[in-house]
Amino acid sequence: MLKVGLLGAGRIGQVHAMNIAGNVRSTLVAVSDMYEDAARKLAATHGAEARSSEAILSDPEIDAVLIATSTDTHSDLIEAAAKAGKAVLCEKPVDLSLERAQQCLRNVAGTGKPVMIGFNRRFDPNFAALKASMQKGEIGKPELLSLTSFDPAPPPVSYIKVSGGLFRDMMIHDFDMANFLMGEAPVALRAVGSSLVDPEIGAAGDVDTAVVTLTYADGRIAVIKNSRRAVYGYDQRVEMLGSEGLLQAGNVLENTVVRSTADGVLSGKPTYFFLERYMPAYAAEWEAFLAAALDGQAMPVTLEDGISALALAEAATESARSGQAVALNGQAN
Amino acid sequence: MLKVGLLGAGRIGQVHAMNIAGNVRSTLVAVSDMYEDAARKLAATHGAEARSSEAILSDPEIDAVLIATSTDTHSDLIEAAAKAGKAVLCEKPVDLSLERAQQCLRNVAGTGKPVMIGFNRRFDPNFAALKASMQKGEIGKPELLSLTSFDPAPPPVSYIKVSGGLFRDMMIHDFDMANFLMGEAPVALRAVGSSLVDPEIGAAGDVDTAVVTLTYADGRIAVIKNSRRAVYGYDQRVEMLGSEGLLQAGNVLENTVVRSTADGVLSGKPTYFFLERYMPAYAAEWEAFLAAALDGQAMPVTLEDGISALALAEAATESARSGQAVALNGQAN
Amino acid sequence: MLKVGLLGAGRIGQVHAMNIAGNVRSTLVAVSDMYEDAARKLAATHGAEARSSEAILSDPEIDAVLIATSTDTHSDLIEAAAKAGKAVLCEKPVDLSLERAQQCLRNVAGTGKPVMIGFNRRFDPNFAALKASMQKGEIGKPELLSLTSFDPAPPPVSYIKVSGGLFRDMMIHDFDMANFLMGEAPVALRAVGSSLVDPEIGAAGDVDTAVVTLTYADGRIAVIKNSRRAVYGYDQRVEMLGSEGLLQAGNVLENTVVRSTADGVLSGKPTYFFLERYMPAYAAEWEAFLAAALDGQAMPVTLEDGISALALAEAATESARSGQAVALNGQAN
Amino acid sequence: MLKVGLLGAGRIGQVHAMNIAGNVRSTLVAVSDMYEDAARKLAATHGAEARSSEAILSDPEIDAVLIATSTDTHSDLIEAAAKAGKAVLCEKPVDLSLERAQQCLRNVAGTGKPVMIGFNRRFDPNFAALKASMQKGEIGKPELLSLTSFDPAPPPVSYIKVSGGLFRDMMIHDFDMANFLMGEAPVALRAVGSSLVDPEIGAAGDVDTAVVTLTYADGRIAVIKNSRRAVYGYDQRVEMLGSEGLLQAGNVLENTVVRSTADGVLSGKPTYFFLERYMPAYAAEWEAFLAAALDGQAMPVTLEDGISALALAEAATESARSGQAVALNGQAN
Repeated sequence: MLKVGLLGAGRIGQVHAMNIAGNVRSTLVAVSDMYEDAARKLAATHGAEARSSEAILSDPEIDAVLIATSTDTHSDLIEAAAKAGKAVLCEKPVDLSLERAQQCLRNVAGTGKPVMIGFNRRFDPNFAALKASMQKGEIGKPELLSLTSFDPAPPPVSYIKVSGGLFRDMMIHDFDMANFLMGEAPVALRAVGSSLVDPEIGAAGDVDTAVVTLTYADGRIAVIKNSRRAVYGYDQRVEMLGSEGLLQAGNVLENTVVRSTADGVLSGKPTYFFLERYMPAYAAEWEAFLAAALDGQAMPVTLEDGISALALAEAATESARSGQAVALNGQAN
Repeated sequence: MLKVGLLGAGRIGQVHAMNIAGNVRSTLVAVSDMYEDAARKLAATHGAEARSSEAILSDPEIDAVLIATSTDTHSDLIEAAAKAGKAVLCEKPVDLSLERAQQCLRNVAGTGKPVMIGFNRRFDPNFAALKASMQKGEIGKPELLSLTSFDPAPPPVSYIKVSGGLFRDMMIHDFDMANFLMGEAPVALRAVGSSLVDPEIGAAGDVDTAVVTLTYADGRIAVIKNSRRAVYGYDQRVEMLGSEGLLQAGNVLENTVVRSTADGVLSGKPTYFFLERYMPAYAAEWEAFLAAALDGQAMPVTLEDGISALALAEAATESARSGQAVALNGQAN
Repeated sequence: MLKVGLLGAGRIGQVHAMNIAGNVRSTLVAVSDMYEDAARKLAATHGAEARSSEAILSDPEIDAVLIATSTDTHSDLIEAAAKAGKAVLCEKPVDLSLERAQQCLRNVAGTGKPVMIGFNRRFDPNFAALKASMQKGEIGKPELLSLTSFDPAPPPVSYIKVSGGLFRDMMIHDFDMANFLMGEAPVALRAVGSSLVDPEIGAAGDVDTAVVTLTYADGRIAVIKNSRRAVYGYDQRVEMLGSEGLLQAGNVLENTVVRSTADGVLSGKPTYFFLERYMPAYAAEWEAFLAAALDGQAMPVTLEDGISALALAEAATESARSGQAVALNGQAN
Repeated sequence: MLKVGLLGAGRIGQVHAMNIAGNVRSTLVAVSDMYEDAARKLAATHGAEARSSEAILSDPEIDAVLIATSTDTHSDLIEAAAKAGKAVLCEKPVDLSLERAQQCLRNVAGTGKPVMIGFNRRFDPNFAALKASMQKGEIGKPELLSLTSFDPAPPPVSYIKVSGGLFRDMMIHDFDMANFLMGEAPVALRAVGSSLVDPEIGAAGDVDTAVVTLTYADGRIAVIKNSRRAVYGYDQRVEMLGSEGLLQAGNVLENTVVRSTADGVLSGKPTYFFLERYMPAYAAEWEAFLAAALDGQAMPVTLEDGISALALAEAATESARSGQAVALNGQAN
């Protein structure tokens, strides 16, 4: 039984609280948040205590912490938690600064404590099934990867301004998915981006529509497409062409009802956003963390993975700005 | 090269004319119709002559006739053509009267001329692929068949009145499909029918919505559903459950475009009616007739098949009226 | 907060326990089972007590009981629980004997306590969405209903022998779904059934493959197909043709991965059986019971509904045996 | 009635011959080919004459020529035919040399004869329906285009060597489709390419797998993916994201049969290659040419369109070699 402290009681913290409390192998002991009320409310729902982050980290009874606070606190909290001897699961991204994230890795290295980064999509049953099929060789040698990730609607511009930009905030999931599926880091990256959805996003110096091409040492290629707006719902698709076939993981629809009328054949939309689509993924992610923290299995997503994705986000930001390809060293971090 | 006379220049006659003239192994020599103008016009399109039916049947140069006239003339024309030594392809049904059709079979028997009945659906590439899969044993032993046949819109009531009723006019295709796929005739039949689409159809003594259950000597079951109205297009589906799986043949859609908007995910409709849906089937049907007439292969759909389907239609008409199950002898005719 | 006693700790009892304990508006207080160990184990998982059924029913602190015991105890327990003043949710069927179920209804009537029957499929999000669309008039007037329910594999023959037969044990769900979607009871029923899956099922006097046709006072028609074996998984589909369109609720697939190879395009199978497919339905069913028990809403599925479905099962059993249509009074019970 | 001479009796010439001869508004008068036997054989099938190209071009009775010869002869034949006063439909590409193609355009300009380039995919009913929906504004403002074109298997290396390379030979279709759907020419292009399918293709200096990103003056983006090998068939998909939705045009499958077994749910493959997939497109292309040649409508695909696509192919070849983005003038040619 893993005793867990949760740092951050926001939207994603609430999802994690439910999984921690709902799993027979973990207990939610305490919750902290910069808004004490939010911590108290969430703690009460699950029979836990509201505490400060410091109180959680210094409690020797607590085995693990889940960091779901704002991004600018991640590196500090990872370091503090690892030094306090906790197993750590931290939401993505590690940091908006690649340099700070690399420093965090060095600082944590000595503690010997395992750190997992919350790239939830790896645990989506559909993407996981796609990878399993690929690894069984069911499409031969994988050669050309396509990732489509469209959000249903853009976040407020106030959020955009502190987000680190589309590549660090949104496409970082796809960079990790590319790493996950290609099994190695690319050697070059080309990015293009535009502000088509909302001119205020462009005015804030960010893009809302972008395409990135990754190339690998052995010639394989990956393409990532992002848009901040798909009015029909959260569009999350993966497609891998291999020497013996194609694998596609499609969207999860609201329901299976199909209506045929004089206007055409109408099916349900994709589920609206990440909370609906990835709810099973968050539960599976927590299971995987428990397997590492309790059973001594290797962390399925490491701090190094988090840094690798961040490095790609930084390179993409640069490439979209300069218009040039960026050479990469082909190493994870 | 088969020299062909076409009897009947209506909608379905025009389809046949195109296939006869377009096939390198057949020539359309002459066309007849009760409306001479129609015959002339169709003949001209394909470089053929307009003649009377008698002139066509008595022309020793003509090898085969395709009968696409009104149903009440089928039996007489089949007999006359067979006696004249022609190979015959006749549109379904053989007759509205089972007795007359059986007499026709006896009259034709002596001529030794092959007669094919135009159950075009057997030649639909989708249904044919379903049958091929079934015969390869890909779903083990077939056990439970479902046929769904919905027309886009009911015909005029004037047509209904001379049609012989839904079971003889419309469901006869499904009875033949059941015979085709089950490979034997049923031992009992239960029919229910209603007039839901158009009260005038009910006033004319017919039904427009019907369900028939067929049972077979070895316990297998088939269900047929018919409606005269599916506003989304011509709905033609076949489904067979077997001991090792399920086969489904679905509709052919207008196009492959899918549009996702805030209202849902919209696909194309089924093609509108039998001319669109079964155009490839009519061409394949003509190929099959040529293989029989020119290459000595067995007729793929015989006069006996036509009578077997008609016997089921007659039994269904009776069962729907009486409310009782009708016992059948389990033989084709 | 509803305090709940659970009678029956078997497979389906465990599902209910999870929903009762997992819902913020209900608490699982006690569990009983004929096997004390099973009750103890399940109670422990959810922090409840193991008790006898009598102890649960006589505890004034307990507001409601969920009956998930073997079918032969349902009527007695419903009566006892209602007399003890509990709100009741009882698994289907009410009883194997229609007469006993009707007596149960009369006995319960005086208590004024609400009783809900667990027809879980009404709460499946797909079927519920289909009904909602139908009720909004999106396909005009509903006319022809088709229900397909195939189990992945037959139960042991030992179970078949005490099950009351396919119509009472399996198709009863479809009879309820027909009542739910057609909104009234049929006036006639025709059933055919065979033993095709397992000869031992036939030897035990039951069928494993069956088709039932229901007809309604206004001419509408419903068809139900059941098989005890669909090797590709639990096949649960609903299709309603209306005057302005068609509604279809399809299967829920294991995942969204599609693999295209030289062999074809391969998608996931339907989820394996009712626990996977209907897990969301069981949770929604419990929500609906809470809304009735706590908020004074009407029971969404009544004891009368349970009896209506049972009456159809009894009529189908008779029709399949006699080969004749059975007239019904068109009333719910 | 248009009298047509066909130059080239190869595989694609045979398709055109069938459409020319099968259309009531055109006649196939003569066929030429560098292999006289091939010309004779094809001419005989359609009741035409075998002649030399010169004889065809100098025959005043012939109104139009269809050029389906090898690519290196296209420019010369277009010029000769236009000077001879013929309407011209020429297979893509105009030339392997952009300079030569531009010269051809200048040389033809003075003749006043309309020239159409055979970008058949514009006439595919699925892509045409996608464009029609887009133009009706059904997805709002189009923003992000994705084109997927995978051949089933690579051509012989001997063909690769004279093909001009993947960008000129294969992706040229996608460049034209991008022009067709985006409605303007891009301002920059980034290409990456690899030889993954067959090392001999790489040894011949070509790539077999490539991704190109196009950017437009207003910030819109298009991505093109090509592979010479998709073992499951000819994979031809278009996807356009707009401000109010997504349009996708999918593959055409062999048939609609779906087989569900213990191994999963198996559908038909995409039709094998361009002759199967685009047969309706070739017929519609010919109709469009007739509408221009006979009815005075504007050519639906012009020589300028051919040159625009070729310019993109040349830029892509350069970008893939240099690794750098290529700036374009955003004009069609």
